[in-house]
Amino acid sequence: MKELALLSLAALLAAAAPEKKPAPGEIAAAAPASDWADIAADDLLVMTLAPDPKGKPRQVLIQLMPPPLSEGWVGNIHALAKAHWWDGLSVYRVQDNYVTQWGDADGDDPKKAKPLPDGLKTVPESGYALKSPTHRVCDGGNCRRAPEPVTATLKAVSRDAYAPGVGFGHGWPLAFDDQGVVWPTHCYGMVGVARDLSPSTGTGAELYTVISHAPRHLDRNIALVGRVVEGMAELSSLPRGAGSLGVYEKPDERTPILSVRLASELPAAEQPHLQYLSTESATFARYAEAVANRRDPFFIAPAGGADLCNVRVPVRRRP
Amino acid sequence: MKELALLSLAALLAAAAPEKKPAPGEIAAAAPASDWADIAADDLLVMTLAPDPKGKPRQVLIQLMPPPLSEGWVGNIHALAKAHWWDGLSVYRVQDNYVTQWGDADGDDPKKAKPLPDGLKTVPESGYALKSPTHRVCDGGNCRRAPEPVTATLKAVSRDAYAPGVGFGHGWPLAFDDQGVVWPTHCYGMVGVARDLSPSTGTGAELYTVISHAPRHLDRNIALVGRVVEGMAELSSLPRGAGSLGVYEKPDERTPILSVRLASELPAAEQPHLQYLSTESATFARYAEAVANRRDPFFIAPAGGADLCNVRVPVRRRP
Repeated sequence: MKELALLSLAALLAAAAPEKKPAPGEIAAAAPASDWADIAADDLLVMTLAPDPKGKPRQVLIQLMPPPLSEGWVGNIHALAKAHWWDGLSVYRVQDNYVTQWGDADGDDPKKAKPLPDGLKTVPESGYALKSPTHRVCDGGNCRRAPEPVTATLKAVSRDAYAPGVGFGHGWPLAFDDQGVVWPTHCYGMVGVARDLSPSTGTGAELYTVISHAPRHLDRNIALVGRVVEGMAELSSLPRGAGSLGVYEKPDERTPILSVRLASELPAAEQPHLQYLSTESATFARYAEAVANRRDPFFIAPAGGADLCNVRVPVRRRP
Repeated sequence: MKELALLSLAALLAAAAPEKKPAPGEIAAAAPASDWADIAADDLLVMTLAPDPKGKPRQVLIQLMPPPLSEGWVGNIHALAKAHWWDGLSVYRVQDNYVTQWGDADGDDPKKAKPLPDGLKTVPESGYALKSPTHRVCDGGNCRRAPEPVTATLKAVSRDAYAPGVGFGHGWPLAFDDQGVVWPTHCYGMVGVARDLSPSTGTGAELYTVISHAPRHLDRNIALVGRVVEGMAELSSLPRGAGSLGVYEKPDERTPILSVRLASELPAAEQPHLQYLSTESATFARYAEAVANRRDPFFIAPAGGADLCNVRVPVRRRP
């Protein structure tokens, strides 16, 4: 009884003078080591750009999506990286409030295009989404059925303009419908496969990242293969292209790519080691709740909800 | 009867082989002149930045919000512009996937801060939102009550993570609740008033624009006063700051502001003339529907809905 009474008093006091709570970043920073998942060296691309105009080195790290999502394209990207195909190519398109794109700027010109390595797959359009067995996913008392690999459907992140359901699975923001179809989503920093008109689905040679408000209308229209987990500013702050769709008009405006390597191909001492906050952890659920209801000192009106793309999965260097 | 039969046949054919439809931009471009609304010279700020590193001039145009939204802060901004207060100050903060901010980089240092002009108002926090009479707003057969100045609640733009209702009014993206409270929203390119901790609401001297996925959790926590309608890339593509919250660590990283003027104070020949697509027009409703259901040639899977911030109100130079 005493404990109950104390609890009630504490609850009363909290209601009378709501305590300021930690910011989402503080919650993530306080997560136990067991809540952080390693990004495997075989799932990490290391893109080295030419130094910036002031001579500062530029490196971008991209985490590739795990199977079975976008598996065909991710396989092609492994092959392209192992062939060192991107070395000497460039970032050739930056369209404001949309995407930064890289690969072969001459790819559309049969006379000048760089030959692709052998063995790349042509992936069908059906690969943009996945029909998957559903299972029961709960957030506290709130349960619903969702297709695998969705593992977290958070009450705080439930109203979405583009899909009946949204959530997370193994670190990735996902959307799904009521027929068990699931697909990755075009959030800021996600990496996708540029393509020509349908039925082209792209190979994975020409890639882009989202530098804008999430263009979710691209979901299920283009393959997503990963996300930038470090160095995003190197791609988002480039000068915008003045040509059609943000393509640079002059070759000297492009940013040269020195190399793209799978981290697993680098000498052990050069391999970056990153971790993401497990979206299956209790810490992540608290983090998402705090994103949806900011009560850290700056805020006076918690929103009561959050957009899927604003619940950014925390990533850090392995301590 | 003949006409009906023809219509049915056409509908059948359309269902069998869905016709590719115009892209949202094509719909806007085809709007009659009467659907475009002029932006008054007194509602337009002209910010001239120092030329870029290659010597290219940089100009940013900002449309101010009409009363009664954020009226107190917009009044202060008029006074600051007329006092030429921003001349010689700088863009001093660029935080990736968040905001670019400008004003007095030394504003927090009482010894170095530039004095503000007399007569600026201190606006209460209640000014972040507006309690307003509701009226009936319809999209085709779908009607609902919404507070003024919401004039367009579009079925295609109805599911929102942050508010019970969203829509447009006189060119602005707005959110509202069921108690008749309405507020502007932090979409890409919107301009807001930086502030200290509550109860500070800021004066309007320190401004920022959103260069990211919409940080809608800032809605009703900070005043919004306008939006960038031309030259957004000059602010979104600046190098990110390495200091806390993206503040530049060295003064020479800042971008100097040469001048900020109300267009109405410029000589007639120098006044830019811009127009926005009236959000009350039938064209805008068709434009929003096309944003939510892309059927132009690139797309294979229309989304069936759109986020408020992805229905960007078209703006053009007056022909």
